[in-house]
Amino acid sequence: MTQVASNLQIDSARLWGTIHETAKFGATPKGGVRRLTLGAEDKQVRDWFKTACEAAGLEVHVDTLGSMFALRRGRDMSKPPVGLGSHLDTQPTGGKFDGVLGTLAALEVVRTLNDAGIETEIPLCIVNWTNEEGSRFAPAMMASAAYVGDFTVDDILSRKDADGVTVADALEIIGYRGDSAVGAQKFSSFIELHIEQGPILEAEGKTIGVVDSGQGLLWYDGRITGFESHAGSTPMRLRRDALATLSEIVLAMETIAKKHGPNAVGTIGEAVIAKPSRNVIPGEIAFTVDCRSADAAIMDALDADLRAATAEISARRKVEVALDLIWRKAPTRFDPKLVDAVEAAAKKLGFSHRRITSGAGHDACNLNTRIPAAMVFVPCKDGVSHNELEDATQADCTAGANVLMHTVLALAGVAS
Amino acid sequence: MTQVASNLQIDSARLWGTIHETAKFGATPKGGVRRLTLGAEDKQVRDWFKTACEAAGLEVHVDTLGSMFALRRGRDMSKPPVGLGSHLDTQPTGGKFDGVLGTLAALEVVRTLNDAGIETEIPLCIVNWTNEEGSRFAPAMMASAAYVGDFTVDDILSRKDADGVTVADALEIIGYRGDSAVGAQKFSSFIELHIEQGPILEAEGKTIGVVDSGQGLLWYDGRITGFESHAGSTPMRLRRDALATLSEIVLAMETIAKKHGPNAVGTIGEAVIAKPSRNVIPGEIAFTVDCRSADAAIMDALDADLRAATAEISARRKVEVALDLIWRKAPTRFDPKLVDAVEAAAKKLGFSHRRITSGAGHDACNLNTRIPAAMVFVPCKDGVSHNELEDATQADCTAGANVLMHTVLALAGVAS
Repeated sequence: MTQVASNLQIDSARLWGTIHETAKFGATPKGGVRRLTLGAEDKQVRDWFKTACEAAGLEVHVDTLGSMFALRRGRDMSKPPVGLGSHLDTQPTGGKFDGVLGTLAALEVVRTLNDAGIETEIPLCIVNWTNEEGSRFAPAMMASAAYVGDFTVDDILSRKDADGVTVADALEIIGYRGDSAVGAQKFSSFIELHIEQGPILEAEGKTIGVVDSGQGLLWYDGRITGFESHAGSTPMRLRRDALATLSEIVLAMETIAKKHGPNAVGTIGEAVIAKPSRNVIPGEIAFTVDCRSADAAIMDALDADLRAATAEISARRKVEVALDLIWRKAPTRFDPKLVDAVEAAAKKLGFSHRRITSGAGHDACNLNTRIPAAMVFVPCKDGVSHNELEDATQADCTAGANVLMHTVLALAGVAS
Repeated sequence: MTQVASNLQIDSARLWGTIHETAKFGATPKGGVRRLTLGAEDKQVRDWFKTACEAAGLEVHVDTLGSMFALRRGRDMSKPPVGLGSHLDTQPTGGKFDGVLGTLAALEVVRTLNDAGIETEIPLCIVNWTNEEGSRFAPAMMASAAYVGDFTVDDILSRKDADGVTVADALEIIGYRGDSAVGAQKFSSFIELHIEQGPILEAEGKTIGVVDSGQGLLWYDGRITGFESHAGSTPMRLRRDALATLSEIVLAMETIAKKHGPNAVGTIGEAVIAKPSRNVIPGEIAFTVDCRSADAAIMDALDADLRAATAEISARRKVEVALDLIWRKAPTRFDPKLVDAVEAAAKKLGFSHRRITSGAGHDACNLNTRIPAAMVFVPCKDGVSHNELEDATQADCTAGANVLMHTVLALAGVAS
């Protein structure tokens, strides 16, 4: 295969322009984007994307779950394409980059290859996956999960939003219930560019994250039952305080995650006191726990340590603590050859880089169970995502798109 | 003055009967009482109480704030009466004893004296104070506070409930806006019998609490501002977790209260995470603190220690913590002669007893700033109050009523 020189670069201004052009679909007053999957704004960005892909000479087809596939023919059409892309839906108060960068950078890669007159050996296929965010319909990343067979298509089509609208209805309403069978579009590999959604690259001054793994996840629902009593007349030694119990669990989770670090995190994100009152000792609290690690053995250790700590705290304080594991997701180990290809592209282009674990879930993590997959990360400001304050620099987005392009070219080859 | 023999006893069955008879006004399915001040059920119990007092030969008058005064004439009408009573309103899901016991025991004392043909030297006056609970109108104990001049009557009359109904309107609606000026009914002393609302007497197997003090109180509004970020992609060392910060504050409050114990308590009763989500590190939490001690110097120490701990935690975690003192109430030191009188009565009647601090606020605490006052406590089951599960035994209620009667007789004297 022909090598492509590292001076082939995407058009930074054009990429930046498309990111800001599409950000108007669902733009919020604070500079963010509200573009819930399969809603009116999602239809707008989908229509824009379809038109742009067709203008770039791509053949667009849509599957039964609304995922969009834009094919760029290669010299050898007997081989499944190299996939690249991400998602265009956002959180209810999301930003301009989460998902959008990976999808529009894929378009920019194709536009650049078109401008340079480069034909790849293997075809390329840009993807916009339906409902990565999961804010309107559960679960998150449902289209890629159905693609790899983790859910049936009928199951996903019947999922409802808070207003009782099904995925099937929502697809019909915006005209994106496509003809292609879910899973019919095959890929030889899949590469997803994304903002990191964490602070590591920024803190270490690195431009490119070569994502070699994704964290496995443990989700728990917890409930503490102490005894609600009068804040004035109950002596400290006779209390069974649910909030003091939770406080020990929160700090134990922090200690346990640090002990198994740096490759482990643990968070209590929700904690609701039943019937809270300024002068009543909390008697009952519902809470959730989110524990993650990219290492299955560490996940086991997190679970064991959390349960041991909780049992000790519960017994000592004479307070009941129920801790139910409601979801366990195995860690992702991205395809080593693809990870190497991403790293080689970053090196060839001279970007500072490091191997990194994805803390968040992505469509590429789902796909990796069936297709060789990998990801490219670029820094985001203060590690903030799922927030209107989400931000990334033009230079970093451009660097990520160039790494994406050179990785894809290495995988797809250039027709000689 | 003539001494009254300790074998003069109230009618236990009659007292128990009135407690259960009045519990039907606002009875809840779970065996509690919902009798919000100045509501329809409060009118029912007030009417019942007025009829019962008049049947016992008492002259009932009502002040501008609806507090009811039932006078039993004494031999020397030049002296202000000994006051005894409590309140008949309840919490939204309250019990059958809080306030009710003290008011109906006062009625039982008068009925017993009537039956025995005993005239006191000094007159007696039973009181049913309006709105002790404070659940419908703020502040709690508003009528006794206005009585001692802490609020003007007009201020209290203009206070509104959640539906915008003023105290003045509510009084008119139920026909209890009385003619007597607030504060016009003078007292030589005031004794209030109440359930403890805490677990100390029960835990120590004591029948009578001789209440010598009431806790002072510090109320704070707190706000923690950390940084909301992704639970998966934010390493432990880069977090500014508002809930972990709160957890340290909760445990510090516990340690500080214990250090200044046994005569100090500290509680975080409310804690609300802004925009809670299972996979988001809490960025902002609003919370409240309630600190109490019967000793003003300890209150100062609680405040200083809490502020120091909060500052240290805040600086170490790089998280902002605002802590605003919104109310400081000085401790109550009940009148020593009255406290001795309560203790002497308990001793004379042969009840196990101990000096005790009231953890909760009571009308007697307000009155004590102007009138010699004291209180008698009896145990309640598991220390539970402000709850439909609130319970007390007939034997303990009877013992409390007898201590109330003999204390009142010692203060009022018996006409020879």
